[in-house]
Amino acid sequence: MDIATIVGLVVGLATIGVVLIMDGGSPAELFAHPSAIILIIGGSLSATVITTPLKVALTLPKYMIQAFTTKNFNAKETISLLTKLADRARREGLLALEEDSKKIKDKFLQKGIMMVVDGVDSEQVEAILETSIEQMRARHKYGAGFFAAAGAFAPTFGIIGTVMGLISVLKQLDNPSALGESIAAAFLATLWGLLMANLIYLPISGKLKANSEEEARNRYMQLEGILAIQAGENPRIVGEKLNAFLAPGDVKSDEAANAKGAKAPAGRAEKAQA
Amino acid sequence: MDIATIVGLVVGLATIGVVLIMDGGSPAELFAHPSAIILIIGGSLSATVITTPLKVALTLPKYMIQAFTTKNFNAKETISLLTKLADRARREGLLALEEDSKKIKDKFLQKGIMMVVDGVDSEQVEAILETSIEQMRARHKYGAGFFAAAGAFAPTFGIIGTVMGLISVLKQLDNPSALGESIAAAFLATLWGLLMANLIYLPISGKLKANSEEEARNRYMQLEGILAIQAGENPRIVGEKLNAFLAPGDVKSDEAANAKGAKAPAGRAEKAQA
Amino acid sequence: MDIATIVGLVVGLATIGVVLIMDGGSPAELFAHPSAIILIIGGSLSATVITTPLKVALTLPKYMIQAFTTKNFNAKETISLLTKLADRARREGLLALEEDSKKIKDKFLQKGIMMVVDGVDSEQVEAILETSIEQMRARHKYGAGFFAAAGAFAPTFGIIGTVMGLISVLKQLDNPSALGESIAAAFLATLWGLLMANLIYLPISGKLKANSEEEARNRYMQLEGILAIQAGENPRIVGEKLNAFLAPGDVKSDEAANAKGAKAPAGRAEKAQA
Amino acid sequence: MDIATIVGLVVGLATIGVVLIMDGGSPAELFAHPSAIILIIGGSLSATVITTPLKVALTLPKYMIQAFTTKNFNAKETISLLTKLADRARREGLLALEEDSKKIKDKFLQKGIMMVVDGVDSEQVEAILETSIEQMRARHKYGAGFFAAAGAFAPTFGIIGTVMGLISVLKQLDNPSALGESIAAAFLATLWGLLMANLIYLPISGKLKANSEEEARNRYMQLEGILAIQAGENPRIVGEKLNAFLAPGDVKSDEAANAKGAKAPAGRAEKAQA
Amino acid sequence: MDIATIVGLVVGLATIGVVLIMDGGSPAELFAHPSAIILIIGGSLSATVITTPLKVALTLPKYMIQAFTTKNFNAKETISLLTKLADRARREGLLALEEDSKKIKDKFLQKGIMMVVDGVDSEQVEAILETSIEQMRARHKYGAGFFAAAGAFAPTFGIIGTVMGLISVLKQLDNPSALGESIAAAFLATLWGLLMANLIYLPISGKLKANSEEEARNRYMQLEGILAIQAGENPRIVGEKLNAFLAPGDVKSDEAANAKGAKAPAGRAEKAQA
Repeated sequence: MDIATIVGLVVGLATIGVVLIMDGGSPAELFAHPSAIILIIGGSLSATVITTPLKVALTLPKYMIQAFTTKNFNAKETISLLTKLADRARREGLLALEEDSKKIKDKFLQKGIMMVVDGVDSEQVEAILETSIEQMRARHKYGAGFFAAAGAFAPTFGIIGTVMGLISVLKQLDNPSALGESIAAAFLATLWGLLMANLIYLPISGKLKANSEEEARNRYMQLEGILAIQAGENPRIVGEKLNAFLAPGDVKSDEAANAKGAKAPAGRAEKAQA
Repeated sequence: MDIATIVGLVVGLATIGVVLIMDGGSPAELFAHPSAIILIIGGSLSATVITTPLKVALTLPKYMIQAFTTKNFNAKETISLLTKLADRARREGLLALEEDSKKIKDKFLQKGIMMVVDGVDSEQVEAILETSIEQMRARHKYGAGFFAAAGAFAPTFGIIGTVMGLISVLKQLDNPSALGESIAAAFLATLWGLLMANLIYLPISGKLKANSEEEARNRYMQLEGILAIQAGENPRIVGEKLNAFLAPGDVKSDEAANAKGAKAPAGRAEKAQA
Repeated sequence: MDIATIVGLVVGLATIGVVLIMDGGSPAELFAHPSAIILIIGGSLSATVITTPLKVALTLPKYMIQAFTTKNFNAKETISLLTKLADRARREGLLALEEDSKKIKDKFLQKGIMMVVDGVDSEQVEAILETSIEQMRARHKYGAGFFAAAGAFAPTFGIIGTVMGLISVLKQLDNPSALGESIAAAFLATLWGLLMANLIYLPISGKLKANSEEEARNRYMQLEGILAIQAGENPRIVGEKLNAFLAPGDVKSDEAANAKGAKAPAGRAEKAQA
Repeated sequence: MDIATIVGLVVGLATIGVVLIMDGGSPAELFAHPSAIILIIGGSLSATVITTPLKVALTLPKYMIQAFTTKNFNAKETISLLTKLADRARREGLLALEEDSKKIKDKFLQKGIMMVVDGVDSEQVEAILETSIEQMRARHKYGAGFFAAAGAFAPTFGIIGTVMGLISVLKQLDNPSALGESIAAAFLATLWGLLMANLIYLPISGKLKANSEEEARNRYMQLEGILAIQAGENPRIVGEKLNAFLAPGDVKSDEAANAKGAKAPAGRAEKAQA
Repeated sequence: MDIATIVGLVVGLATIGVVLIMDGGSPAELFAHPSAIILIIGGSLSATVITTPLKVALTLPKYMIQAFTTKNFNAKETISLLTKLADRARREGLLALEEDSKKIKDKFLQKGIMMVVDGVDSEQVEAILETSIEQMRARHKYGAGFFAAAGAFAPTFGIIGTVMGLISVLKQLDNPSALGESIAAAFLATLWGLLMANLIYLPISGKLKANSEEEARNRYMQLEGILAIQAGENPRIVGEKLNAFLAPGDVKSDEAANAKGAKAPAGRAEKAQA
């Protein structure tokens, strides 16, 4: 479960409710005119569906679930795994990784290591895995783009609803007693358009985009590691390369390990010359 | 037929109609003042026509049809075809593809394979096909750009219409009984501007853009395959390369095939060394 | 004459006029308060002139004329010319092109072929011609940018005018009979700002940009052809390369020619091996 | 302490206060309706938290502190240090830098020099340090992006609050005496939304972005220096390379040094030939 | 003096004044409520100062002066100088440029030629000068960005001022006689926000950006020339390369020179083969 999404949503809705009550109203008023809700949701989704390939529109629920779940990328664990594999590859050769590769749970990493074991050419490995990351990114873009488009359409349909409401109000100016109530109802559409866009559509789009960037970053780190292993690079350099993806603060435990290595300067110098 | 475009359009228009009826009006009111419709459509299209090369403006109907039809790119079929060709090319040489190339229905793919058979230099093949994809993209951009521009102009012409209406209202303040009706008529232009932009122009522009990206992606996949065949690459690697364009879920059947191949490790190792 | 620009402008202005008459007014009302027109044109142009290098501001009329005229790039004719030159260069050597180059009307193409005849190094030819295209693009950007800036400033000056008008209205609330008229006059500035931006400035900016892209695309096609000729490439490949710049539908006549070539497979195979 | 942030904030808030008093009100009025403040802060932050990975949301206070503190990059000092190291490396070899590297306080610079001393391959050093800079940039983007998103959401929640307020006002039109007061309260939400966005969120986002660019620029300068040292380049060239990162005015003292060098033309010529 | 900036500013301000008088008011009304002016200038500048590194904020006056002055880049003169140097370098060797380099007034060009004379490696010269241009561009961006940010903040502070004004108006609805005057005063803030942004901040930002692009373009032309001289290229090719930076119309005099050269085809052919 992605806690940030849920906390944000709950707090956001609670804020709206509290403010309505503080101002002497009640959250129920938001639902007084269902036509506003129908217009906003119906209008924004149908406009977005036109914009979108059918295939994407059909996988919409999948994208919503993705925004509420977290993929956990434990970068440090991945780095320690790749460094270990680099070490073994150097000592026992690339074929020795066959056993290890079967135990890797991450499909992407496993596929990469298996290609290395199979002796696939380094440039091909890079091309295949990079295509795979970039195409993943392109697919993710559809999901984030769907909600971004819906978030752009929703406030406009809110204004459409309010203008439609005002037009019918203006035709009935002879009944001034109901005037205020009718104008209020007209503005409800604007309110729903803004709320749907700013509490649902746009934040979900932002979350999907952030998740996609996080995953791509992690994949590129794995790709870097796989290529370094294939090139037979020094495990310490592999570690350095991968740690460069982390914030300085996150590498401390690793630096402790380096410090330990520093006690054996001879060994280090030998490795570094490789 | 592109179902998403049609479903979106029908649902969107139905939503507007339903909301108008729920609020005690009728869809007929939208057409009460034809001057609003004339202004929005006339204004937005004429401004866009100025923006656009004449050639593009004349092919406008073609672009509208494109937004309502789908080109079906069956990526899996293309991959299996290219893998088969790669296999034959490896066994019988590139010239053996001449027969196959005549049966290919996709003009782009056919042209590529024929150049390979004719012995055109690999870099030339890449340059010619890439130019062809990028120029296609540039042409598609005109169509999407036309509707995007129309979608940007339409709401502004809506505001122009409303301001023009309000100006004439303000000059006749001495007749307060007709005031509401006149202001309502003025706002109709804003409504039409927003509806044309958000239900017609912008979604169609988005669809044309999405279709273009889909086609370009498919073309680049074909290009990758053609070059791999020309380079005499291992059919399994060709398959891997092309499958990297698919979502992991779509490759399953293919992985089953790989699993089968895994039973013959000797053969695989031999291929992978190539 | 660029017909699209003129048709768009005439239809756009006619639409405004017709709508004004349909709503019971007359186009003359637009010119009732010249101060609105002075503010919009004076304000938007002076703000844009500050934004722009003096040299560009002085060539403004030239840019306006450019938006109303079309350069005709006949791509097919260029392709057939370049293919013919490629053929002659292959048979008689590059120096044989000297005569032909003198007859070429297009200055850019002529300069390129002359450098090839003079034996200028291929990389230099590419660098010089590419610089030339990119600098042309940069110059064109100034013109399109001028009108885009004016189009961004105009509506804001419209609002400035309306706010100024409303402020003076609000100070004379004691004369309610003239109130409507005064507010109407204030809104006229908004109307002029929107009309100038959406019927004049922005469409002209769009047209200049589209013309520039069209010219750059054509120049890059010529550059490709010149370099292919210098490299002594097979005329058929040169044709393929240049046709890749066209839409598939535009190449038909050329494909007929290819079909003719297909009757002489021996010759073709020989050429393709080059 | 980053003085610009603090000065800007204090002057900005003081301006608001002074203007309120000049117009016959008092700053206390801004806090008359706490529901407006709750809505803006609660709404904008919760929408932004949905948009953001949880990890980033939790480090929010860290980012706020960063906007109020300055990292001091003394570029000239760094240049003089790197030139000195280049000089020593040329005379005594790369291993002679081991002692110096231990004294360097900047962790990034130290890591780079240590890799050079350890004999890590030049391309690896570049790859590792560049990854490190780009990943730092990506992390910084999260912080700036958080406040940019909050700054985009805040005014919209202001409008949401005002619309909610107007809706309840319109329902109580029968009590005209309190009308003005209620509408004023409704507009307070818009005011808070605009103030939070324009005095807090957006400027802080801008500052974080500017700080990040400044740091990246400095890191790339250090990287350039490290690679030049490793390549054994002439200290004078190293100096030239790094001074190119400075504004011409900032290099004066250095040019004085060059002038001194100019008195020994023989030595300079010898160096420049290297 | 940059005449465009001054003409634009004077005409723009005069337009505002004339329009105010035509509408029966007077320019003095703009200054009737100093609180509006204080809010706009104080608010927009303090928000921008938070956004900006302190160093940039302090050099603000320098940037304002830059927008009002023109650097004169005489491209044709530079080209004729560089062609002359290329000629001498070819005949007498690179060292012969030492004398000439001392007479060059342009610091950037001088530095480049001096490095060439000193025998600095070609790639180093390119790297140093390119860094120098790009860093100049980055510094210029700060100045343009400062005014762009101020131009974005100013209208919002205008709305803030108007909302603040309206809130206090709404609290005093019991005094209807002063109502119009107070609302007018509230709108003055919007007017000032729009005027400051559209006549001062944004145009100055645009001018600084245009100046920077002009300078960068000129620098890249000089860089191209310096590298061509160092590579010992034919002066005629150097001329062609640099003329490609000019508009075709500006090269006429040069083409006349070429025509003269054409009378000596033998010599030209010999040069072109180099």
